[in-house]
Amino acid sequence: MAVNLPPPDPASLHPVRGLELSVARAGIRKPGRKDLLVMQLVPGSAVAGVFTQNRFCAAPVLLCRKHLQSSKQIRALVVNTGNANAGTGNDGLRRALAVCTSVGKLIGCRPGQVLPFSTGVIMEPLPADRIIAGLSATQACDWASAAEAIMTTDTVAKAFSKKLKLSKGEATVTGIAKGAGMIRPDMATMLGFVATDAAVSKKILGKIAKSAADQSFNCITVDGDTSTNDSFVLIATGAGPACRSKKDLDEIEKAITEVSQRLAQAIIRDGEGASKFVTVHVEQGRNAAECRKVAYAIAHSPLVKTAFFASDPNLGRILAAVGNAGVGLDVSRVGLFLDKVAVAKGGARHPDYRDEQGVAVMSKPEFVVRVVLGRGKAAATIWTCDFSFDYVKINAEYRT
Amino acid sequence: MAVNLPPPDPASLHPVRGLELSVARAGIRKPGRKDLLVMQLVPGSAVAGVFTQNRFCAAPVLLCRKHLQSSKQIRALVVNTGNANAGTGNDGLRRALAVCTSVGKLIGCRPGQVLPFSTGVIMEPLPADRIIAGLSATQACDWASAAEAIMTTDTVAKAFSKKLKLSKGEATVTGIAKGAGMIRPDMATMLGFVATDAAVSKKILGKIAKSAADQSFNCITVDGDTSTNDSFVLIATGAGPACRSKKDLDEIEKAITEVSQRLAQAIIRDGEGASKFVTVHVEQGRNAAECRKVAYAIAHSPLVKTAFFASDPNLGRILAAVGNAGVGLDVSRVGLFLDKVAVAKGGARHPDYRDEQGVAVMSKPEFVVRVVLGRGKAAATIWTCDFSFDYVKINAEYRT
Repeated sequence: MAVNLPPPDPASLHPVRGLELSVARAGIRKPGRKDLLVMQLVPGSAVAGVFTQNRFCAAPVLLCRKHLQSSKQIRALVVNTGNANAGTGNDGLRRALAVCTSVGKLIGCRPGQVLPFSTGVIMEPLPADRIIAGLSATQACDWASAAEAIMTTDTVAKAFSKKLKLSKGEATVTGIAKGAGMIRPDMATMLGFVATDAAVSKKILGKIAKSAADQSFNCITVDGDTSTNDSFVLIATGAGPACRSKKDLDEIEKAITEVSQRLAQAIIRDGEGASKFVTVHVEQGRNAAECRKVAYAIAHSPLVKTAFFASDPNLGRILAAVGNAGVGLDVSRVGLFLDKVAVAKGGARHPDYRDEQGVAVMSKPEFVVRVVLGRGKAAATIWTCDFSFDYVKINAEYRT
Repeated sequence: MAVNLPPPDPASLHPVRGLELSVARAGIRKPGRKDLLVMQLVPGSAVAGVFTQNRFCAAPVLLCRKHLQSSKQIRALVVNTGNANAGTGNDGLRRALAVCTSVGKLIGCRPGQVLPFSTGVIMEPLPADRIIAGLSATQACDWASAAEAIMTTDTVAKAFSKKLKLSKGEATVTGIAKGAGMIRPDMATMLGFVATDAAVSKKILGKIAKSAADQSFNCITVDGDTSTNDSFVLIATGAGPACRSKKDLDEIEKAITEVSQRLAQAIIRDGEGASKFVTVHVEQGRNAAECRKVAYAIAHSPLVKTAFFASDPNLGRILAAVGNAGVGLDVSRVGLFLDKVAVAKGGARHPDYRDEQGVAVMSKPEFVVRVVLGRGKAAATIWTCDFSFDYVKINAEYRT
């Protein structure tokens, strides 16, 4: 059902100098599959993270926040699948810390210099012993393998990479992600890791991470839910060219944002039960916040999403969702387009619009819903998918 | 699939003195079915209304608001099914006003003293001529017939009635409602009408209407959407006992709230594809608003709703929804109950809880999800239903 692009070509994924990847088959939940990833960073690397806003955040998220705050130098990331270490209380924190300690011993750093990430079943104790045993059996790997190692319910690995020219030389930006629903608490979570070899200060990297997340992972929604473990981490190893001038920083931010967007979109394309990849673009708002509100009101409406599934250009459902967004709109100024087809104008059906035109657009696996608010100059874009029988099937039958 | 109670017994629905009901078969969308209801009120009746917050509100809603504001005396309500007169612009206003004018001529009042209500397909011109023709062929009817006349996709008529003793004599409160989804824009809308013969001032009636709506029609959700036509109207004809003392007013408010709640719950029981009727009760919050936020976060989560459908006590999904509500919770104080079964305590699985207990509760057609926030004394209750294959089927296949 997914609207996936072809899986990433390993040759297209450029190594990032200063970052070593290794994977293991630790048998965390099932034997034989790659379920443990370590990213080792050279000294001097800068690291920034953006984490779930869910109040029930998982033990590894709590530790990540703590370690990022207290340590000047992050030296490694460790990611396990099969168990999310969520809803596990203080015992979960202890187990996650034991994993960090073990990674630290192996590479020669303090536990506080290691960031842990977990994804998989929740409310079950993290099998830290199996993870620790797995750590001593990791093997060096490439980004394609790393992307596979963090998959849970994903039907395709998610990775993207690009090179760019900075004034001091060529830099690389490569990222991987996992997720097939904004949340799926038993086997859940969105994880995104983007790394560059450019030398960017920690402070500036933090700003870029926030901005890139806001334009990528924070712009996608399958079902409006947010996982307890959602994490996005940005790494700049500094093993490549320095990046200090305004122009260079703009370039690297652009590249990081593009890689993050490709990864975020790949999650939506692989959305649970998704049969359509829909871009919702809202423009002419007073500010980006109200454009986002309108976009999310559309993307979260089960009625709109079932209409997407049915290839049904149900004008009333979309306009009603716009009207429901909690924005003080003058509806007589609102316009609506499906790709280039003008569907509504002045808050009502466009006089030239014929239903067949809307059906033709919505029958495609990818299309754009564009809303014109007519009250300002701001805009926002989010990406979402439809709501299908398979969504209910996957989520209702998951534990059986 | 619905979780309906048996249809109302006509004998249980007490007439309301001062209010005359009549119906017609006007052939608005389909021939032969009751599709037009007129409620005529004696002079001196007080009327108050609560309407959709959707910015794309329909022509009849705009007229209702205007007439309630400009007219001291409302003398009639006219309700048609088959056409919602929504998304119809100024032409829709003219047509709705023509219907009001026609009602006014028949009963001898100004158009501004008539409140119009429409429900049915949207974005199509209201067939005002057929409605006006139908008006001269109405026949007196009882509340059971009136409840039937306003049905659209409802599978059962919704009516409830009770008598109560006031200091000046016995009063009646009787109400009808329609709706089977918070929104279904083609054939949509929640309408609720509650009438009493007690004499209550317009000002006080307005307060009671707001409060009763907040505890009934504003506490239900099928899919989180709000229709362009949602309306709740409260009528006090004054043909019965006076109602002025604090004690009497408390009594009548209690009765009106109860009738409104029964009607609101009946809509959820008849929810599109509903197989479970779920009460979400949140307590020990700092204020009612945050309790409602948490309750709606649970009731709107597609993951929680599919878990309801699957009778799957998926603790993680429910707690994650609580954590997602945007309330600054200390999760270590959060408790969760399914009916009387303690599922979570201190933000984590209750040590005594076994999964079979949760499955047993959630396999029932009706159960209570109770969340304890542990940070105050406020509480809130809302009613919702599950998300089933049939929800997708009904909403995806509707126009085909």
